[in-house]
Amino acid sequence: MATAIDFYFDFSSPYGYFAASRIEALAAKYGRTVHWHPVLLGAVFKTTGGQPLTQIPIKGDYARHDMQRTARLHAIPFRFPEKFPISSQLAARCALWAGNVHGEARKTELSLALYRAYFAHGQDITETQTVLAVAQELGLDGAAMIEAINGTAIKEQLREEVDAAMRRGVFGAPFMIVDGEPFWGFDRFDQIELWLKNGPF
Amino acid sequence: MATAIDFYFDFSSPYGYFAASRIEALAAKYGRTVHWHPVLLGAVFKTTGGQPLTQIPIKGDYARHDMQRTARLHAIPFRFPEKFPISSQLAARCALWAGNVHGEARKTELSLALYRAYFAHGQDITETQTVLAVAQELGLDGAAMIEAINGTAIKEQLREEVDAAMRRGVFGAPFMIVDGEPFWGFDRFDQIELWLKNGPF
Repeated sequence: MATAIDFYFDFSSPYGYFAASRIEALAAKYGRTVHWHPVLLGAVFKTTGGQPLTQIPIKGDYARHDMQRTARLHAIPFRFPEKFPISSQLAARCALWAGNVHGEARKTELSLALYRAYFAHGQDITETQTVLAVAQELGLDGAAMIEAINGTAIKEQLREEVDAAMRRGVFGAPFMIVDGEPFWGFDRFDQIELWLKNGPF
Repeated sequence: MATAIDFYFDFSSPYGYFAASRIEALAAKYGRTVHWHPVLLGAVFKTTGGQPLTQIPIKGDYARHDMQRTARLHAIPFRFPEKFPISSQLAARCALWAGNVHGEARKTELSLALYRAYFAHGQDITETQTVLAVAQELGLDGAAMIEAINGTAIKEQLREEVDAAMRRGVFGAPFMIVDGEPFWGFDRFDQIELWLKNGPF
């Protein structure tokens, strides 16, 4: 039986947003499902010494240009946010909560809505009021969500998710694992498609 | 008139080697020529804080895996070298010498031969004897080359080439500039092809 694709993403990553906008369609085309895993790149970068792309001299300017160009090419609505990068903990906890309470499909739906709020609509998803509004628009119980994401259980769950991701070799985002095979970056969607279509190469 | 594609590469970069193996065919398909520019990533990284991919925790293991997979997918002969990364100054000077004395076509030919010696045949292109043999196999005057690459003029020329590249925004390799548009990475060959085919997007 075809296994699910594991999709690791950070709500602060533009390329993660591009991947999030396309991965369900790609998976569905080949009869696969997707498990969405919000992670915190900040925690990962403590181990790898990475840093936000746009903050690197020279490379940062290129990255902003490349993001706009890539969004245009794939027809993905995108505005580079005024506030960037952001701490993505709040959004990640919301996504985990939706998964805990309502299952994978709602986690996916809320994750994509939060990504769009930030990268398409310029909303600040580090603000409780913003994530509350996004959740309520999907018909989720916003009050229950806010209570849960301020609790220690979900904070601990997120920490464990990040640790588990790193144990699987996740060092950046987006990061996809297909049949145990790791692929890093929206750039690798072409290789993932070949893998799904023809099997290992 | 269609302008040449500027191709910046470091002889120590596996993805630079992949790009070098495919860029002439891509350019020719759309009636373009390629100007090959050897650069030294070590010098660039002093400004950007970059470091060799394979030396980064977790990411390094993935990078080695991804290189092998990408080489297989594109049917490019590739063996990860025992000695890696290397100082690419010697090879870069040889390439510049070939361009100075024999013109662009010979620079391209020698550059590709040096890349193949290192990444396909496991030869150490930091050794004078190796670059000499590679040059002689192409019918170049090896003795004249060795004399030139030990002179101060070509060292200064390489320094200026690296500075000029950085002024154009080059922060990594491979790096391609097409009609003023920057593209970083072998991953961007699909976007470059769309650009060459349909124009700006």
